[in-house]
Parts: sequence; C-alpha cells; structure tokens
Amino acid sequence: MHAVVIDAGKLHWRERPDPCAGDHEIVVAVRAAGVNGADLAQREGRYPAPPGWPPDIPGLEMAGEVVSTGEAVTRFAPGDRVMGLVGGGGQATLAAVDEAHALAVPDGVSWPEAGGFMEVCATAFDALFGQARLTVGERVLVTGAAGGVGCVAVQLAALAGARVTASVRDRALHDAVAELGAAEVIEPEAVTDGGPYDVVLELVGAASLPCALRALATRGRVVVIGVGSGARLEVDLLSLMTRRARVFASTLRGRSRAEKASLIAALGARVVPALAEGRLRVPVTGTFPLRDAGSAYERFAAGGKLGKIVLVA
Amino acid sequence: MHAVVIDAGKLHWRERPDPCAGDHEIVVAVRAAGVNGADLAQREGRYPAPPGWPPDIPGLEMAGEVVSTGEAVTRFAPGDRVMGLVGGGGQATLAAVDEAHALAVPDGVSWPEAGGFMEVCATAFDALFGQARLTVGERVLVTGAAGGVGCVAVQLAALAGARVTASVRDRALHDAVAELGAAEVIEPEAVTDGGPYDVVLELVGAASLPCALRALATRGRVVVIGVGSGARLEVDLLSLMTRRARVFASTLRGRSRAEKASLIAALGARVVPALAEGRLRVPVTGTFPLRDAGSAYERFAAGGKLGKIVLVA
Repeated sequence: MHAVVIDAGKLHWRERPDPCAGDHEIVVAVRAAGVNGADLAQREGRYPAPPGWPPDIPGLEMAGEVVSTGEAVTRFAPGDRVMGLVGGGGQATLAAVDEAHALAVPDGVSWPEAGGFMEVCATAFDALFGQARLTVGERVLVTGAAGGVGCVAVQLAALAGARVTASVRDRALHDAVAELGAAEVIEPEAVTDGGPYDVVLELVGAASLPCALRALATRGRVVVIGVGSGARLEVDLLSLMTRRARVFASTLRGRSRAEKASLIAALGARVVPALAEGRLRVPVTGTFPLRDAGSAYERFAAGGKLGKIVLVA
Repeated sequence: MHAVVIDAGKLHWRERPDPCAGDHEIVVAVRAAGVNGADLAQREGRYPAPPGWPPDIPGLEMAGEVVSTGEAVTRFAPGDRVMGLVGGGGQATLAAVDEAHALAVPDGVSWPEAGGFMEVCATAFDALFGQARLTVGERVLVTGAAGGVGCVAVQLAALAGARVTASVRDRALHDAVAELGAAEVIEPEAVTDGGPYDVVLELVGAASLPCALRALATRGRVVVIGVGSGARLEVDLLSLMTRRARVFASTLRGRSRAEKASLIAALGARVVPALAEGRLRVPVTGTFPLRDAGSAYERFAAGGKLGKIVLVA
C-alpha cells in the first residue's frame, strides 16, 4: 500500500507493507480520510500515536470498502462500505480497523462525508452527551463552531433540543453555521455577555475558555477537547466553586479499544440514523488527493473553513 | 437571644431579636456550633451570606434542643435533640432551621460532636459520593486531611472501601489521621510521587492542586472545595485532556433549600448510622464559649488542629 508518512516533521507519500486483518479486524481500501488537528500536532511531534498504532502514519478516521476480514469478524464482509475510527494510520490506501470501531456507511452518504464522519462525530457526541449530559432545553455554547467537531456539535445539540450559541471568529462563516441549527452565531468577544450557558463545548482552548467560564451557569458543565489556541491558562477556583462548575477534559485517541467500541455502538444507534436521513451532515470544505496530504494540512492550518478537509483516494 | 455578630471585620457578642419558626422551620436552643473556614472568610468580608440568611451572624452548623416548631413541621417536637445545617446564623443562642435541614442527634453523641457534624459531613459526603462517585477499591487522595472536612472525608472514604492517602502538612498530626483510617499519611511534597489517584479531594487550594493533578489517574476526578491556600493557579489543559480529568468545583452554602434537603436526607440515611454506631466520629480539637468566638476563630486560623473547633453555649 501507499501511505502518508511523517518523517522529521514533514509529510511523505511512501510505500509500506499492506496491513493484515487481525482476528477482529477488517482491512479497508480507503476512499476518503478526514484531516484533524491531531494530525497536524502529530506532524509537529506534539501528539505521538498511542501504543499499538502506526507511529508515523497519521489519520484518525477513514471510509472505504472492506477488502478482507479477520477470522472472528461477524459484522462485515468484503465489499461493504464502512467508515472507521483508528488510533492512527487512516491516511493510507489500506487501513486495518477493529470491526467494533467501524460502522456501515448509509446509502447516499458520499465518501468524503463518510471519511470525515467518525472522529468528529464520536468526539462531539461523547462530549455533549457522554460527558456533559446535555439535555432538551439547555443552553449550550460551542466555541470554534465552524470547525469539523464544531459543525457536528452544533447540529447534534440542536437535534437534542438544546439552544445553541455558536462562537465563530470568521464573520464570513456565520450564516453557514446558523444554517446548521445555531440559534445565534456570535464573535468570540461577545461570549462573556451571553449565556448563562448550561454547557460549554470548548474547542479553541486557552484563548477562549476564560470568557466562556464567565458566562457559565450555576452547575454548568464545560468539556475541553480542543486547545489549538493554547493549553495553559490561569483559573480562579473560587469562581468555579461559586458556580459549582464541572470541567471535563477529554481526548478520544488514548481510550481503550473497549471504550471506543462502546462509544461507536452508541454512535451507530443514535447518530448514524440522522446522517442517513439527512438531518445531520458533515460539511466538507475541500478535498485533496491522499498523496497531496501536505496541501490538505496547509489548507487546514489556514483556517477560515467550514467543517472538514478530507483526503480522497 | 444573643449572637456572634460580624461588624466591620470584628466579632461581637450582641443581643438580637429571637427568631420565629417559619411554617417548615424549627427553632433550636443552640448547645454547640462548629467553626468553619467560611466563617473566617465571612468575617473578612470575602464570603457574604447568601440571600435569605442573616447577613452578619456567622455559623453554618449547630446542634441543640428544639424549643418551638412551625405549623407545617412534622418530624420534630420541642425537646428533641437535633443538629442542623444553615446558610448562616448558627453561632447564636437560638437559630431557626428548616426541618428538612435537620437530623436527630443519635444517643451518645456529644453536643460538640453534633454541633460540628453537619457542615463537614455534608461537604465530605457530597464531594466524595455525590460528585466524585467514589467507589470501593479506588485510590483517593485527601489534601489538608487533618482539618474538619478532611477528618470526616478520610473516615467516609475508608468506610466506602477506598484506599485513602491523606496529605497533612503538620507531622505531629500524622498518627492521628492514620488512626482515622488513612492507609498512608504523607507530607504535601510527597503527593506528586504517589498515586495514581482515582479521586482527589482538594481541601487546600492553589498551593496543593498542581501536585495532585500530576498524580491523577486516567479518568480521575478532582473535587475542589477548599482554597485556603489561594484560588488562582495556572493549569495545563492538555495534561488534563490526556488524563481525561474531571474537575468538580463546589460549595454547599449557595445551594437551594431543596438541594440541601435532598443531601441531608441522604446524610441521615447513609452516614448518621455510622455516627450512631461509633464507626464515624467528628474529632473536636477544642471548644470555646459562644461569647468568646474570637478566640475560637484565632485557634482555627492558627492551624495545627485535628478536626473541629466548636463553640458551646
């Protein structure tokens, strides 16, 4: 197979041995693979792959056709259209995935959408519902809402009957984010004056979080899953205590296979139907050939995009 | 009645009108009232009483005999020995308490123990079980474990089958804290090298929390309820994300009457039996006459105590 390979902080397109399907794995001929902030961080050496995953092939999500299956696989057969979550190695022409970390791609969903679905949807779904336990009628703030996770989080929160405030730096993207279901789209500076928010989904990090904390409701929950703007900040514990704030910091990548399997089963049951019916979509701003991952990463880093950048084979 | 009254940052012993029992309230002739850090903060103007409570009479917990009852009161009658949680006003010869915020004092429990029970036990119980959901076999770190909340938290966590590490600055108190059920008692500097802790109960604040966070287990929970050493600190969100940390900041005092009632009902059902049977105790380091609250606060501020300072009538 060929794969995007990180070597000394640069991306290369190199030949690598084909993966073999382990007992519970399927091997997928990749048709599309989403780019995530984690890939860029990994390229810079800041976010190494967890043990058990290819150390130098980036890519946390992909979609394609099953080409072979391990002996214990029961849910998929060669030729099936699947989308999968991996701890690395998704940006290659072939990728091995645990069958419990894969879901069938609904009819009518394009390869780029399917290839950009798993990481952002699993992340947004877990943050909003698994951790913050967002429920109907609550007010939720999504910061950095125009990004991949943000676009899905806005839609999922709106589907759940919450009132969504989306914070988006780029004015040119405000209308598009509103169309995803946000009741209001504001600039980051306006966050402090809004709320109070029952739930804050923090996708931006240190530059954004202090404002969000000031607008947090009593018993509010904050889920921190993105720190692109920085990770270090000063907090005032007394103000958190007064608000009885709950702060959840999280990543998906380092979780055990069993934890991921249980999250993906929930995703299949509760979110994929909305994708199949067109009530949820994965906005794709641009696609790039797999072998030109460098350009895709550049486009990702440039910002000002709505939703996902996806590599296609 | 007479009451401890805060006036211009000082404590006075003054006459005040007797309280009347509201429909759901009992009036209690106070026999003992615990001193808490919140009282000292209130004296310094840093922690005003929440709306609906005496603004200038400190005291969050007390015990005594019921002298009168409101029309709707069903659980208590004059003469009953009760201990109560109040949002303020506990340090007086009479105090009005919602009957849902009071519990019967078990036979054999002394007035000072009963007077120092409610605030620290409700705080420790809520933090460990309501928030952190501590469970059998987990490792828990209690910082500032020799204090009022700490002494009870160590015992409750041990009763729940957790393995308790207590962090105590004063070496002279280590043996006494170990006798409360701590598997190990360490100095604050040793916290970083211990763990990993599934649950951290942070009772000290900014000076202690960074070390505790470094020793936190994956998916660890941190409950911050004391900030005596300071409230502002720099945190690294990325390190919290990697650990998938959950941080709960909390206070009891500002909660609604309904929330307090439900917490106190749980306390009555799950913790008071241990108090009655002698499996839980409220260590009382010293008692002072109510009218000499100033000396009690001085003793509290001096530190180096095990458990509670209690005012007695």
